[in-house]
Amino acid sequence: MLENYRIRTDLALETTERFKEDNVEIRGVVIHENYDQEKDIRTTVVKIETENGAKAMGRPQGTYITIEAPNLSIPDEDYHREISEEIARHLRQLINLKEETSVLVVGLGNREITPDALGPHVVGNLRMTRHIIREYGISGIGEEKAHRVSGIVPGVMAQTGMETLEIIQGVVAETKPEVVIAIDALAARSTKRLNRTIQITDTGINPGSGVGNHREGINEENLQVKVIGIGIPTVVDAATIVHDAMSHLLEALDEAEQKEFLEEMISPQLHSLFVTPKDVDETIKRLGYTLSEGLNMAFAQV
Amino acid sequence: MLENYRIRTDLALETTERFKEDNVEIRGVVIHENYDQEKDIRTTVVKIETENGAKAMGRPQGTYITIEAPNLSIPDEDYHREISEEIARHLRQLINLKEETSVLVVGLGNREITPDALGPHVVGNLRMTRHIIREYGISGIGEEKAHRVSGIVPGVMAQTGMETLEIIQGVVAETKPEVVIAIDALAARSTKRLNRTIQITDTGINPGSGVGNHREGINEENLQVKVIGIGIPTVVDAATIVHDAMSHLLEALDEAEQKEFLEEMISPQLHSLFVTPKDVDETIKRLGYTLSEGLNMAFAQV
Amino acid sequence: MLENYRIRTDLALETTERFKEDNVEIRGVVIHENYDQEKDIRTTVVKIETENGAKAMGRPQGTYITIEAPNLSIPDEDYHREISEEIARHLRQLINLKEETSVLVVGLGNREITPDALGPHVVGNLRMTRHIIREYGISGIGEEKAHRVSGIVPGVMAQTGMETLEIIQGVVAETKPEVVIAIDALAARSTKRLNRTIQITDTGINPGSGVGNHREGINEENLQVKVIGIGIPTVVDAATIVHDAMSHLLEALDEAEQKEFLEEMISPQLHSLFVTPKDVDETIKRLGYTLSEGLNMAFAQV
Amino acid sequence: MLENYRIRTDLALETTERFKEDNVEIRGVVIHENYDQEKDIRTTVVKIETENGAKAMGRPQGTYITIEAPNLSIPDEDYHREISEEIARHLRQLINLKEETSVLVVGLGNREITPDALGPHVVGNLRMTRHIIREYGISGIGEEKAHRVSGIVPGVMAQTGMETLEIIQGVVAETKPEVVIAIDALAARSTKRLNRTIQITDTGINPGSGVGNHREGINEENLQVKVIGIGIPTVVDAATIVHDAMSHLLEALDEAEQKEFLEEMISPQLHSLFVTPKDVDETIKRLGYTLSEGLNMAFAQV
Repeated sequence: MLENYRIRTDLALETTERFKEDNVEIRGVVIHENYDQEKDIRTTVVKIETENGAKAMGRPQGTYITIEAPNLSIPDEDYHREISEEIARHLRQLINLKEETSVLVVGLGNREITPDALGPHVVGNLRMTRHIIREYGISGIGEEKAHRVSGIVPGVMAQTGMETLEIIQGVVAETKPEVVIAIDALAARSTKRLNRTIQITDTGINPGSGVGNHREGINEENLQVKVIGIGIPTVVDAATIVHDAMSHLLEALDEAEQKEFLEEMISPQLHSLFVTPKDVDETIKRLGYTLSEGLNMAFAQV
Repeated sequence: MLENYRIRTDLALETTERFKEDNVEIRGVVIHENYDQEKDIRTTVVKIETENGAKAMGRPQGTYITIEAPNLSIPDEDYHREISEEIARHLRQLINLKEETSVLVVGLGNREITPDALGPHVVGNLRMTRHIIREYGISGIGEEKAHRVSGIVPGVMAQTGMETLEIIQGVVAETKPEVVIAIDALAARSTKRLNRTIQITDTGINPGSGVGNHREGINEENLQVKVIGIGIPTVVDAATIVHDAMSHLLEALDEAEQKEFLEEMISPQLHSLFVTPKDVDETIKRLGYTLSEGLNMAFAQV
Repeated sequence: MLENYRIRTDLALETTERFKEDNVEIRGVVIHENYDQEKDIRTTVVKIETENGAKAMGRPQGTYITIEAPNLSIPDEDYHREISEEIARHLRQLINLKEETSVLVVGLGNREITPDALGPHVVGNLRMTRHIIREYGISGIGEEKAHRVSGIVPGVMAQTGMETLEIIQGVVAETKPEVVIAIDALAARSTKRLNRTIQITDTGINPGSGVGNHREGINEENLQVKVIGIGIPTVVDAATIVHDAMSHLLEALDEAEQKEFLEEMISPQLHSLFVTPKDVDETIKRLGYTLSEGLNMAFAQV
Repeated sequence: MLENYRIRTDLALETTERFKEDNVEIRGVVIHENYDQEKDIRTTVVKIETENGAKAMGRPQGTYITIEAPNLSIPDEDYHREISEEIARHLRQLINLKEETSVLVVGLGNREITPDALGPHVVGNLRMTRHIIREYGISGIGEEKAHRVSGIVPGVMAQTGMETLEIIQGVVAETKPEVVIAIDALAARSTKRLNRTIQITDTGINPGSGVGNHREGINEENLQVKVIGIGIPTVVDAATIVHDAMSHLLEALDEAEQKEFLEEMISPQLHSLFVTPKDVDETIKRLGYTLSEGLNMAFAQV
């Protein structure tokens, strides 16, 4: 629907929902959903298995795990611990953390723009081990086996004069991790997902994704090692808000009328505006902590 | 128009514009406009002179000076200095700073929510003199005459457990300033005003104003001293964005239809969302500096 | 000893230790010590009961509780919870929190100077209830009985142009709390106390105390309500470091020689320098949290 | 003197001063001093020209420019601009910025520990151009010729799990700058240098230097491109303070006595303590700005 006005979305789940609305089944895409009623956590695994599926979905082949947790935006320590455990579980499966592994965690985004600072917050809370193991051996960690964890906050292009990908490529070439985990703040298509949804994917972070909009993919193709992308939508484009509010109205129009209508209605200026909840500063800190605890849990055992 | 859905606006200027659109002249309200083409600064003085004018405008009698400066949201030091001078000039007139005066500047808002932190930023940049004069006399300032400047950031009710007004009343009763200047971040009705408009008024800061929504007026009636309110709109309500986008469409409907339409369209959730420009963190710092320099200039000479 | 060079100390405990070293017993001062070996927490209660005791100790009559917890400077959540409970227990006794009480917590110090920001951090973590009870009654809290908690961060004189005492007096007169609890970062006489010692006293916070050095006492005499002072030493004066290092050496000299010696040795410039541990930013956050949790626990039950 | 207790100093100038005190001339080391009385800026150029000189000085062969500006720690905009110009002038000479050059600026240190955050502050204020030129060509800058400026804040080992050198090596290999400029906060030997002295050297930043103590040199040998190191002492080791205070006293003792004396006197704990001025937070911001403006000036013209 609305091809010309397709609102940018970084969540694979939202794309599948659009197909569902239209009662279209997409070949090459397998969807499994699981709902934990007690915890009110819905987990959807979307697997894009063929070229055709990738084309239909407008994103690369791979696995997209979406955790929807309505209470994620609320300050409840126990609930957040459960989410951290859920993240840890999926990560361990996706990376296959049964052997000692060296992991580089990349905190994408701009630490000086609050809703874009999710990645930097996560790296700030991680327990790094690589330098300790290099200096003192595994025994320095007090375990028999341990993963080598390192992390970096590369900053955004306006801050560094470099493509984020260039910095990561350089660090990967020099420190040779087996897996890269890239964390980013995403843009959602709907306010109801804001700060409530976590997407984990083995396709990395790709162009157009994220608040800061990286131009080149942080993915296996570009880095030559496995790349996991983890994202949480922290903003909605102001244009999306308008679009959503008018969706019922638009249903009555045919496609050409819709197009004309929206062209008039949504001023280009709207696209330079963010919509965030009023407590965004506090929310980002809390989400960053929940994510980093998930990573810390995943890396704590071999 | 649209009484039941009147979008909250903190700018008197926006209210006069609505009357203008309808070609209605309001008795008891005098408007003077001045445009400096070279600097691209438009200054509008709205004087509400009668009870009738106050009722029509939905705000107290008094003077409302609005400085519209499109480049205010851009980092240009020289331009910002000119705006500071403009603010200083209006303040000196409004307060009549010809005699030595003791002034308490109140930075309203929540310093931990970026777009609400304008007031705290302003107080943080002010040159305080009251304590120096109390300790060493006027000579401690190195002048023959000097204003006594003090300032406070009272915080918001959720942070203090107290009405902001209570704290200010206590400090005013104890330190006895002759004038209070209250700074606040406002909500605008239109994205085009965002971070580009400064309102200075001798009516203080009144209920419903401001991002943080004080319940009791910071005004002369409550404080028993002259109160100047200075505000800059730093957010737009997400509901406003939708409303604006649909305004043309709504014109075709009668009032009852509009009401029904909007009730359906604008979800209550939208009101818990802020719309801000992407660079809000940096913008607030810069605006806070421009305002505080305006105050510093106004207080620098007797 | 060394009257003219008496190093400023804000801890009553340190004063008693100096008497102990000299084997002097002070009439009018009663000292009780308790050591919990398992938790490694030493609690000393110093009661100054007479005018004579007050003169000897150089501080007002009253109760001074000192909690020494060597691991307080280490990030250990369980240990910190125990300290919070210890603080809560002493506070409840000192204030007699058996009846519903209205409490104003004052976070002294400068939030922009890291080691002085302890008080602001504590108030930032407190659960305020006064405004909820005022608006919705006790039932708004979800309890049958509740204390009314409010808090303020008054800032320091250079930031406000006002004496901290003036601001507090104003707020106390307006909001009429029954008890004031003032939190401050203190200066210690010895590096071994740094961030490891908590002093709770019913004499408030008095001149010369604290990193920021208030000139007038935040105490019952000035506020006309009970005032509890809580302090943690977060800095050592650079001059103290030198003095301590040379103490053995000085023992060999008589008083006049010591005085002359120190006058030459300790340059006045040293007094404008702070000594802090390298991880002061993180330490202050953690200590602030431990203290505020202690207060939250104390206020949670009637 | 005092070999075993040689206080660590990162300033070549301080090493030459020690020789001067002892009236020793060092072969292979040439010193030029220039004093601008009007501006009160003293510039000393120390050239270590031989292996022998390097050994005597305890640091690599190369040029060490020291700018001593007593008012650097004071907030005076005009004075700071002059210092920025002085820095720019020396940089342009040392790098030979006559041709278009690609420069990578590295902000060493930990942004979360105030006195160590100098480097991150500098990179935060720099005008990056490399990405603009890559995207739009030189014309994107609006000049005919331009330097390609990029920058990175690598973080410290405890934050990243990687040696700082590894990260820089990776980024240098990937983005191929012709010159690296590394900025670091240094430790001084004397409180009188604190925040008043700037050292610029073509030997980079070497082990033992800096507040954060990098283990491997950020220098030409390790990076295979020219490396300029710029440092400002922002802390003094607490042990240094004691040592300085006692220096007169120590003169009376012979070397063995001095050694014994100091071993007793300076507790190891002192070395985990920083000495900083009380206004360190504000000072670091200002120094960071002055340095970054110096770099911006140096890069503004080809």
